[in-house]
Amino acid sequence: MNDDQLLLLVIKNLKEIKKDGLRHIIEELQPYDIAQLYLDLPEKHRHKFLLSLNSRDIAMLLQELESDVQLDILHKLGVEKSSQVMDIMQTDDLADLLGELSVEKIEGFLAMMKKEESQTVQDFMRYAPDTAGGIMTNRYVWIRLYYTVAQAIEKLKSFANMAETIYYLYVLDEGGKLVGVVSYRDLLLANHQDKVSEIMFNRVISVQVDMDQEEVARLIQRYDFIAIPVVNEENNLVGIVTVDDVIDVVMEEANEDIEKFSASGHSIDFQTSAFTASFRRLPWLILLLFIGLISGSIISGFEDTLAQVVSLAFFMPMIAGMTGNTGTQSLAVVIRGLVVNDIDRKTTFKLVLRELGVGCIIGVVCGALISIIAYLWQGDPVLGLVVGSSLFLTLIIGTLAGTIIPLILYRFNVDPAVASGPLITTLNDVFSLTVYFTLATIFITRLM
Amino acid sequence: MNDDQLLLLVIKNLKEIKKDGLRHIIEELQPYDIAQLYLDLPEKHRHKFLLSLNSRDIAMLLQELESDVQLDILHKLGVEKSSQVMDIMQTDDLADLLGELSVEKIEGFLAMMKKEESQTVQDFMRYAPDTAGGIMTNRYVWIRLYYTVAQAIEKLKSFANMAETIYYLYVLDEGGKLVGVVSYRDLLLANHQDKVSEIMFNRVISVQVDMDQEEVARLIQRYDFIAIPVVNEENNLVGIVTVDDVIDVVMEEANEDIEKFSASGHSIDFQTSAFTASFRRLPWLILLLFIGLISGSIISGFEDTLAQVVSLAFFMPMIAGMTGNTGTQSLAVVIRGLVVNDIDRKTTFKLVLRELGVGCIIGVVCGALISIIAYLWQGDPVLGLVVGSSLFLTLIIGTLAGTIIPLILYRFNVDPAVASGPLITTLNDVFSLTVYFTLATIFITRLM
Repeated sequence: MNDDQLLLLVIKNLKEIKKDGLRHIIEELQPYDIAQLYLDLPEKHRHKFLLSLNSRDIAMLLQELESDVQLDILHKLGVEKSSQVMDIMQTDDLADLLGELSVEKIEGFLAMMKKEESQTVQDFMRYAPDTAGGIMTNRYVWIRLYYTVAQAIEKLKSFANMAETIYYLYVLDEGGKLVGVVSYRDLLLANHQDKVSEIMFNRVISVQVDMDQEEVARLIQRYDFIAIPVVNEENNLVGIVTVDDVIDVVMEEANEDIEKFSASGHSIDFQTSAFTASFRRLPWLILLLFIGLISGSIISGFEDTLAQVVSLAFFMPMIAGMTGNTGTQSLAVVIRGLVVNDIDRKTTFKLVLRELGVGCIIGVVCGALISIIAYLWQGDPVLGLVVGSSLFLTLIIGTLAGTIIPLILYRFNVDPAVASGPLITTLNDVFSLTVYFTLATIFITRLM
Repeated sequence: MNDDQLLLLVIKNLKEIKKDGLRHIIEELQPYDIAQLYLDLPEKHRHKFLLSLNSRDIAMLLQELESDVQLDILHKLGVEKSSQVMDIMQTDDLADLLGELSVEKIEGFLAMMKKEESQTVQDFMRYAPDTAGGIMTNRYVWIRLYYTVAQAIEKLKSFANMAETIYYLYVLDEGGKLVGVVSYRDLLLANHQDKVSEIMFNRVISVQVDMDQEEVARLIQRYDFIAIPVVNEENNLVGIVTVDDVIDVVMEEANEDIEKFSASGHSIDFQTSAFTASFRRLPWLILLLFIGLISGSIISGFEDTLAQVVSLAFFMPMIAGMTGNTGTQSLAVVIRGLVVNDIDRKTTFKLVLRELGVGCIIGVVCGALISIIAYLWQGDPVLGLVVGSSLFLTLIIGTLAGTIIPLILYRFNVDPAVASGPLITTLNDVFSLTVYFTLATIFITRLM
């Protein structure tokens, strides 16, 4: 059955008020599918569809939707039913959702929720969204050090419906401190009368609640975990981050890197309006416009040279462009490298040296090539020499600029992707034109 | 205990040949940690360290290492021990490892391995590395439709040590076809005498063995699965892809996008030599050099105009640069959007229209700004008008080029990221200089 057939079947069941038929369909669907179904439903059927779902289904549905649709659903449900749904939602998703509402609305919902859930979500709303605390959930299973395997399995059973993952059980001591972890696999292979303390893994890898989400993602990736425990400064367990949230983080961060890399401004997607998109892109463009004028003023400083040999202008776009391009290439290598490598003085030194080598090699190749082309085109060997040696020098400068600028930003704890491709390109315009016209001015008598 | 202390302790145990002490340390470590430890060990201790590991530890260690270190370890172990380790390794990792070896070596190892493992890995080596088949493992647990829950748990126990994930049990009919899935959670909550067929989930979401790995990653992300089953054309279960492999895929693809976006060439990392890096980057640079020369030949076509008003050259870098920058921004929006959106005719049309709007808005703002600046700087209102209206037009062209070129590539099934930032930038040089000098030539009598 494809999506359209499914949609028609659901509408048919809604029209005929066949609750059982509908339940049967929904039970076989994944949360993502239910969300797609809801979005595909005509507006007039949506309310009836929501009524046919139980609170648990609605909680799952909400977690798959964008915030504007979420808010619309809460509105349709009313405060009382919404609060019931919120009691069931994952705390991290709920905290995000509430973050979209006005203070009065938040208070309205919190007042209707169960007291403990309401308290937890308020705690969660205090964590920065891009930290471990911001993406963690509190739906984990914890056990005591003195439990037997049989007791642990009992606890697991009673929490199985609620917990986000039941793959790991976290072992806490009397003070709530995290002292061990037991996987479901360990439980399965142990004897029922074994003590948890005997079969648990003592060297628990955990993260601090304020750790950057990218760091958390790297740890989960490194260790192939399904979830990682989050602790506070006293090593008390406060939540877990699960692998599905980490995939979202990785995708998000990759997008942000391309966003910054292209200086395309914060979060423009296919739905953003032309006005919003323009005003997000303009700050960068205006900055780059002024840097572009610096290039212009450099050329104006060499006005006499240019007036005497106008053909110098023919090679300007090529030289400036090539310097920008090699800078962008180096920038990409550095930014990608910083994601996976730890950078120390030695690595930095080696990398800069390598890129110097790269600059020299491509400088020699491209410089020689353009010398010959310029000579053949304009019939002037000195012009060929000036253009070629300029390109040689600017390719070295451009390559190093694309390497060193992001490294310096990184050292000063600025995100190196701020040194976007356009910025490097525009800066390299300035460098390359200076070199080109300086060389041309030196050889001006030979060029005329 | 930090990494250095751990290393010293391990070396101490190795020197004193304390096998038990060593075992005790290793048991508490994650595979990634064992691999880091191995890499940090001085060469002279490595052989002894390997001898103290059992085949299972070595198999885990190998899976965390780069292929050159893997091959070195196989060499140290000898063919017989290596084959024992290979029997235990994940089939997908083993297939990758063997892919690095010469045909004779592969045959040598395969001959020493268990027959069934050897057959499986040969099957796996036939799948393309960037498909579901290339990243799947055969270490899953399958059960029959007629099993009871108790029988399923028994099977799970006996496979718990071997399986990559024991979160899902896949239900096969008599012909090996995938007909259902049961999660460990379901088993935990069911009664021991229940039939698997009663508690299983019938609507199994699976992927075809030749599906692109990026598509597989998107499905796992969408459904928040721990693993997804892989089937062949007859719907026979042939393997599973687990979420940890998917994270690696997502990271890899994000890197590739930035790689292509910056035209920085295939896989250059911090370890690549300067020569290799140069020769991977050169093809793009040489292509861009020739496109840059097209810009030059356009300017040479307007040599007279330029000779008469040299100050036109002052604004060349700014106009060309800005056009390139807005193109890069649009390109990034499109490339990011294509990762998450399905593109149909309507979406395409809306997107192009939106970007046309963006081009007009930023064109008006930047065009007006530069008109005033150019007038104030050069004291010529006509020059201000020519520069401003050129920038207005070229920003619209640049924005549309950055949008339409990747969309056309996508429609013709070419990866849109091939339209890298440097390529768009260089093409936009050509467009913008043509517009600028054409306008200037039209107004030449007023400019002099």
